[in-house]
Amino acid sequence: MTYEVKSLNEECGVFGIWGHPDAAKLTYFGLHSLQHRGQEGAGILSNDQGQLKRHRDMGLLSEVFRNPANLDKLTGTSAIGHVRYATAGEASVDNIQPFLFRFHDMQFGLAHNGNLTNAESLKKELEQRGAIFSSTSDSEILAHLIRRSHNPNLMGKIKEALSLVKGGFAYILLFEDKLIAALDPNGFRPLSIGKMTNGAVVVSSETCAFEVIGAEWIRDVKPGEIVIVDDNGIQYDSYTNDTQLAICSMEYIYFARPDSNIHGVNVHTARKRMGAQLAREFKHEADIVVGVPNSSLSVAMGFAEESGLPNEMGLIKNQYTQRTFIQPTQELREQGVRMKLSAVSGVVKGKRVVMIDDSIVRGTTSRRIVQLLKEAGASEVHVAIGSPALAYPCFYGIDIQTRQELIAANHTVEETRQIIGADSLTYLSIDGLIDSIGIETDAPNGGLCVAYFDGDYPTPLYDYEEDYRRSLEEKTSFYK
Amino acid sequence: MTYEVKSLNEECGVFGIWGHPDAAKLTYFGLHSLQHRGQEGAGILSNDQGQLKRHRDMGLLSEVFRNPANLDKLTGTSAIGHVRYATAGEASVDNIQPFLFRFHDMQFGLAHNGNLTNAESLKKELEQRGAIFSSTSDSEILAHLIRRSHNPNLMGKIKEALSLVKGGFAYILLFEDKLIAALDPNGFRPLSIGKMTNGAVVVSSETCAFEVIGAEWIRDVKPGEIVIVDDNGIQYDSYTNDTQLAICSMEYIYFARPDSNIHGVNVHTARKRMGAQLAREFKHEADIVVGVPNSSLSVAMGFAEESGLPNEMGLIKNQYTQRTFIQPTQELREQGVRMKLSAVSGVVKGKRVVMIDDSIVRGTTSRRIVQLLKEAGASEVHVAIGSPALAYPCFYGIDIQTRQELIAANHTVEETRQIIGADSLTYLSIDGLIDSIGIETDAPNGGLCVAYFDGDYPTPLYDYEEDYRRSLEEKTSFYK
Amino acid sequence: MTYEVKSLNEECGVFGIWGHPDAAKLTYFGLHSLQHRGQEGAGILSNDQGQLKRHRDMGLLSEVFRNPANLDKLTGTSAIGHVRYATAGEASVDNIQPFLFRFHDMQFGLAHNGNLTNAESLKKELEQRGAIFSSTSDSEILAHLIRRSHNPNLMGKIKEALSLVKGGFAYILLFEDKLIAALDPNGFRPLSIGKMTNGAVVVSSETCAFEVIGAEWIRDVKPGEIVIVDDNGIQYDSYTNDTQLAICSMEYIYFARPDSNIHGVNVHTARKRMGAQLAREFKHEADIVVGVPNSSLSVAMGFAEESGLPNEMGLIKNQYTQRTFIQPTQELREQGVRMKLSAVSGVVKGKRVVMIDDSIVRGTTSRRIVQLLKEAGASEVHVAIGSPALAYPCFYGIDIQTRQELIAANHTVEETRQIIGADSLTYLSIDGLIDSIGIETDAPNGGLCVAYFDGDYPTPLYDYEEDYRRSLEEKTSFYK
Amino acid sequence: MTYEVKSLNEECGVFGIWGHPDAAKLTYFGLHSLQHRGQEGAGILSNDQGQLKRHRDMGLLSEVFRNPANLDKLTGTSAIGHVRYATAGEASVDNIQPFLFRFHDMQFGLAHNGNLTNAESLKKELEQRGAIFSSTSDSEILAHLIRRSHNPNLMGKIKEALSLVKGGFAYILLFEDKLIAALDPNGFRPLSIGKMTNGAVVVSSETCAFEVIGAEWIRDVKPGEIVIVDDNGIQYDSYTNDTQLAICSMEYIYFARPDSNIHGVNVHTARKRMGAQLAREFKHEADIVVGVPNSSLSVAMGFAEESGLPNEMGLIKNQYTQRTFIQPTQELREQGVRMKLSAVSGVVKGKRVVMIDDSIVRGTTSRRIVQLLKEAGASEVHVAIGSPALAYPCFYGIDIQTRQELIAANHTVEETRQIIGADSLTYLSIDGLIDSIGIETDAPNGGLCVAYFDGDYPTPLYDYEEDYRRSLEEKTSFYK
Repeated sequence: MTYEVKSLNEECGVFGIWGHPDAAKLTYFGLHSLQHRGQEGAGILSNDQGQLKRHRDMGLLSEVFRNPANLDKLTGTSAIGHVRYATAGEASVDNIQPFLFRFHDMQFGLAHNGNLTNAESLKKELEQRGAIFSSTSDSEILAHLIRRSHNPNLMGKIKEALSLVKGGFAYILLFEDKLIAALDPNGFRPLSIGKMTNGAVVVSSETCAFEVIGAEWIRDVKPGEIVIVDDNGIQYDSYTNDTQLAICSMEYIYFARPDSNIHGVNVHTARKRMGAQLAREFKHEADIVVGVPNSSLSVAMGFAEESGLPNEMGLIKNQYTQRTFIQPTQELREQGVRMKLSAVSGVVKGKRVVMIDDSIVRGTTSRRIVQLLKEAGASEVHVAIGSPALAYPCFYGIDIQTRQELIAANHTVEETRQIIGADSLTYLSIDGLIDSIGIETDAPNGGLCVAYFDGDYPTPLYDYEEDYRRSLEEKTSFYK
Repeated sequence: MTYEVKSLNEECGVFGIWGHPDAAKLTYFGLHSLQHRGQEGAGILSNDQGQLKRHRDMGLLSEVFRNPANLDKLTGTSAIGHVRYATAGEASVDNIQPFLFRFHDMQFGLAHNGNLTNAESLKKELEQRGAIFSSTSDSEILAHLIRRSHNPNLMGKIKEALSLVKGGFAYILLFEDKLIAALDPNGFRPLSIGKMTNGAVVVSSETCAFEVIGAEWIRDVKPGEIVIVDDNGIQYDSYTNDTQLAICSMEYIYFARPDSNIHGVNVHTARKRMGAQLAREFKHEADIVVGVPNSSLSVAMGFAEESGLPNEMGLIKNQYTQRTFIQPTQELREQGVRMKLSAVSGVVKGKRVVMIDDSIVRGTTSRRIVQLLKEAGASEVHVAIGSPALAYPCFYGIDIQTRQELIAANHTVEETRQIIGADSLTYLSIDGLIDSIGIETDAPNGGLCVAYFDGDYPTPLYDYEEDYRRSLEEKTSFYK
Repeated sequence: MTYEVKSLNEECGVFGIWGHPDAAKLTYFGLHSLQHRGQEGAGILSNDQGQLKRHRDMGLLSEVFRNPANLDKLTGTSAIGHVRYATAGEASVDNIQPFLFRFHDMQFGLAHNGNLTNAESLKKELEQRGAIFSSTSDSEILAHLIRRSHNPNLMGKIKEALSLVKGGFAYILLFEDKLIAALDPNGFRPLSIGKMTNGAVVVSSETCAFEVIGAEWIRDVKPGEIVIVDDNGIQYDSYTNDTQLAICSMEYIYFARPDSNIHGVNVHTARKRMGAQLAREFKHEADIVVGVPNSSLSVAMGFAEESGLPNEMGLIKNQYTQRTFIQPTQELREQGVRMKLSAVSGVVKGKRVVMIDDSIVRGTTSRRIVQLLKEAGASEVHVAIGSPALAYPCFYGIDIQTRQELIAANHTVEETRQIIGADSLTYLSIDGLIDSIGIETDAPNGGLCVAYFDGDYPTPLYDYEEDYRRSLEEKTSFYK
Repeated sequence: MTYEVKSLNEECGVFGIWGHPDAAKLTYFGLHSLQHRGQEGAGILSNDQGQLKRHRDMGLLSEVFRNPANLDKLTGTSAIGHVRYATAGEASVDNIQPFLFRFHDMQFGLAHNGNLTNAESLKKELEQRGAIFSSTSDSEILAHLIRRSHNPNLMGKIKEALSLVKGGFAYILLFEDKLIAALDPNGFRPLSIGKMTNGAVVVSSETCAFEVIGAEWIRDVKPGEIVIVDDNGIQYDSYTNDTQLAICSMEYIYFARPDSNIHGVNVHTARKRMGAQLAREFKHEADIVVGVPNSSLSVAMGFAEESGLPNEMGLIKNQYTQRTFIQPTQELREQGVRMKLSAVSGVVKGKRVVMIDDSIVRGTTSRRIVQLLKEAGASEVHVAIGSPALAYPCFYGIDIQTRQELIAANHTVEETRQIIGADSLTYLSIDGLIDSIGIETDAPNGGLCVAYFDGDYPTPLYDYEEDYRRSLEEKTSFYK
């Protein structure tokens, strides 16, 4: 089992629409609002009266469709789209979704967000039975399972296939006569359903896409659910009853856009509550609050309001950082860093700063920002994190697969504080996080997956079991 | 006198460095932090022991130098750079700066931020004497004046030329043996001097560039001053004594980066004070404060702190909006608008919102945002603007050249409120603005140019005099 | 059975090398000399000690590898490459070869020139057994057949797969430990083997690639043969004994480069002999010979020498025609045509011209060139064609699939002469063609496939049988 | 005086049209047929009722106008265009023509083919009087001279300016109300006038452009002539009477397209006569004639017909060579060479070959081709050149500026033969060349400039005089 394969199957965004004459263009608008979920590649597949058409490529959505002809040709009244997360592994257009499967008797498209935990086993078994995979992505597996099912009808085939894949997944499939959305039994990844004024049905990883296209939210897809959309409307079904909500808490903490709602909770508002709770858990004296732009601004707002400290713009992120091809020499490395983020000495000089960030992974970024603030004259820098310490890998769709990358897996809070050079370090408590998010549910952990914080995974790990065991033993440090 | 010519000479950013082995790369980093001042084109010109080399093109800095070889070839220990503002007029690489002038006996480079008010007269006179201009920019005029001066030495020629051009200008010139910076007699445009640890001297439109490259601010260039930098250090001289500080107040309100300091005043801090003052002048009941991202966030912070109202993220700006080539159809226009900015219904629903913006030009953007907020469920939208009403054109370097484009030139505050659909509309007072900025100076208006608010220009308008008169009479409305 | 699928599987070029440290670069040089065989896309796949690496894209080879890094990364001592023919059908990078198949237990690459006549049946059957195809190309079928074979060893699997596919094919497969080349039982497509001075073995569609890389020709691959190249050298085997040479005569007439040798016959020399024979069959008076550049120049040389008439440059092809994006308006259509080819009035004025071309398909080009010559002043234009009349479709790898496209399928020679506006029209006789080429063989038709001329196909047509029958009946004309 | 400046002003193509609604598109077609005269850059400037519009850029014409919008925007009924020769010097869009000069009282465009011999003196003098040049090209000088003339009317100014510039030049100027073409007093460069059926007048470097757009040739511009085209038709005038035809013989030998006529002589026909004459001057036994493609094919035809030897395709030029970005390693250098040109062993093996080329400059190419032929098995290679030995530089528009680059300046014919490895070497005699071309004129040397062959320049050399003297003395060899 190689790491290369696994690191390719991570965080992404999916969108689908059924029943609108501008299906592909609306998918473009929807995907645009999901661009933060993946920047490596993008694609749209449309269905024009049974003819499936697709355009996909590496790059941002606007680059992929730089030539408007590539969007114009995607005619039809239904479409699905995908934005793909950039990983270190093999970058190839073969892995860009939606995938398109053509047969002599049918055809369909597929978009997938998540990570399967039994992909290796399934692939190996399928290959031994003659299957050929055209990508190194695990998203293709479902199509093989559907085609090889002996169930006599299509819905039966799909349900059988869904019951065989394990892990985290939100799928959107586009057939000639219907669109199908499905979620894993724990609902690890978000997926919402909306409706447009003309009756068109839309499905999206996040509700922010609904605001953009003027759709109204209906409800979120439930764990283990399968949603069938066709010209007769929406039909809800399920492929399993063994379900329990455990949505990824990192969606609220970091991934999702602040204007999205997930399971009835607005993300910005949840983050403000995390900030307020963090302020209550924070035990130090300080003068000002400074959020690390852009992801921590909501947390900083909540912290400032609760603590009564002024919220200041002590760190500036350059908005033109997306694509710089100039590699600074060793001597100019520091300048390269400051191109993206700079501390405002006029704001922080002589101040005791509470530096708010959403999370700490390796700690290198935090260390750098603390240093920027101190060089700009901050007298003290107290780091307060809007989430608990990340100490365990994720196997359901986030790109953290080993404990070696995680500073909190290898160091105590005090060690971490010293490494990043802060005057204090405060993490939000797990309970504080759960209370702040506050999904209405009876599921354990408030319906959240918090396994990266406590190592308690809601499902068996299948092919990753061995990796995980080894990971726990190795516990080596990368700061020496 | 055509408008085409004038609209080409607007807001830009300039940077220069003398005495560093990585001069061009540091200029790249410096310009990168000035990118907000101009996105149409960019260029860098370096001086390698008397050999001037240049690369310039249309597009963002990172696009212009997408091929690193174009930066690597700019060897030498001094350099100047320029980022150019995008205007509706003729877009051509001929107008991208720095300009490079080569003669059989010498050569020099030139970068210019500002707008000359006697450009037409000077051009006409020079052409009648045989001059040929290679651009439609007014920035080229200074070079002709320098070359045609009968003064026997170079500094004399430059001073003579500077005394002939009128209006707003910050120039950086690069000669084989020196770098020269010069500011107009009113200091309309900002220009600061800094020093690096190795002794290299840097000049920049804004001090944020100094943070990026690790330079220390020395002081701002004074009105009417000419600064000569060579291997012997910095020398301050002046070409006129008839000076009076009147720096563009829009630099504090909108243009400059929050982390820059201008004439000793931090821009973010000034904006917070404007927000606090605006809160004091605001006379309505409300529940939450929502700043229009990104330029109004500091003002919103100040308003929220002073008013005690919570500061909320009720509007989300998509960070991936820079380059969309897809033109929405008429039917999809609204979706196109929401791609860039969307209102967060989870935040604003049922709330009386104070919507904070930095300024109103035509009013179309404000009208759209008010509508977004109301559609997202805001019960009331009170628009509060961090600056006075823009009612008069600018001739010193901002791209507002006719009153017809300005809603406040043609409508009362109450009419404007109705047009934009707000429940109330509050502008910051001129005195409130001046007090909030608070430059230490004895100059009138606190050292600020506020002519766009009161029509009282600090200088004669020269070639624009007639345009301005006609503009006052026409006073037609574009909202009918 | 749709036409879309068939039109994607046409004329291409393949190249392979085993045992050279610069394998990918030499493949680049080799493919460059095969570029005339396909301009839609290109790709190279290398083998670095068992690790297969690939780069492929739409466009000319030089465009696909515009960024040299894409070639540099293809390390290893063996490689295969492919250039793909441009067709009207679906253009997608998915169809660009070499294909790369990765499994948990092995991996291999595949490049294919030719067209399978039982592709539809095989695809349908494989899909019913669960196979998923990732391209719309028939080249992928062989990989599925190999993987599904129950033969216990790899060579057995490959032989079994080769015996199942029908039609015209030259395959090159690259495995971790060997390179395999195979030809169909009729040898419809050319494939030659060569050796470099360092012992490296090369395989190529045409021998012109050997000249370019300094390799020496060993021999051509025989019908039904399978060639295995590994570190122990070359091994010749076969998967069938039911073979009979029927190489595509259009390779000699049009496709192949003049400097290539096929089955021991130099193409330029064969064409000169066709020209000489054509001169003997030609029955008219004329003053000068003018070849249509570039493909007919050899034929024109042979005609001129045999006839004693001067060979003149009466038609000029612009060498800069590859990529013009300007679409002439209806009014300017004629100018657009002349951009590519123009007649030299100084040469043809008042002359009785023998216009030599290699073949006539629709007749539209011939009609246009006759008109150009007459407008330039030619008193008579006698069209002499270096091949017999094309009257039947090809199913073995040439992009002529219906009789409707062929003027000679629907019109007599005299009708064709009138349509193209010539004073006379002479086709080379089939016997004349066979004698001119002169392969040393006992096979019928001198070892050539001449089915497009006489409708006598050397194999059953399988999936195309029905199409062909229908085609014979329809016999409609497109000139009315 | 630096060489950098001189090497920028070389061989180019110009085109102009007055009086056609599709002026810019026809200019595109015309320039396309002149692309062989320059591939570094291209531009078109149109005149839409007094508004001059332009697009220009680096690259081939089809690349410069890859986006059709750039051509569509060039509206108007008159236009001029330019294709620029690629030189080693500074490549910059600033040097791409047509130049566009805008003044407050007028504007005009300028396209120039040729080289001025007093450019340095004129530039220096103009700069001392305040002029600023925007390019490093000498083509800009004429505009400065026109603007500074004290002559009261425009035609007077233009004539005065034309009388001040020396050397070789063909100018096309486009004013709001007229198009002006002018030729130097020796007519060094070709320039022809044509007419379209709608009455539009066209001017072009070569008549091949007339064929492409369907225009009829009227006559060639005469030395010292100035042609004025406006809505009243064509008017012929002159700015000097001191004229004598000395058209560049290299136009017939190498530069011009075979289908062009210059001063009444068809270029292909002239080359055939050169070949026939060369055959008469050739004194060796041989079996076949092989022309170096593409420029020597006409000469080879003439040689073969006169000698009775068969004309064979013994060398093949790959038609896909224009843009290869792959740099072969030192080991693969030979393969890189063969990518462009390869010898056909099937044709030349065992034969005594007459290798025909148009000219020899450094001799490196000839040496390489001789080697290719011998490696392909030619028993003897006799090199026969369709022009006399190039031994002196050109200062009128060809990029040969020093004797050091010319093998014939430093070596006898026998030495050259040994260096290139040929069995014999035959140059065409100067008298043979003059007779073969055969312009109807009383001018010396048959109206041709043959100074590169005999060193006898038809004009003073002005700024180049000193360079030339030094060049004669140095006479160093680059083959040692």
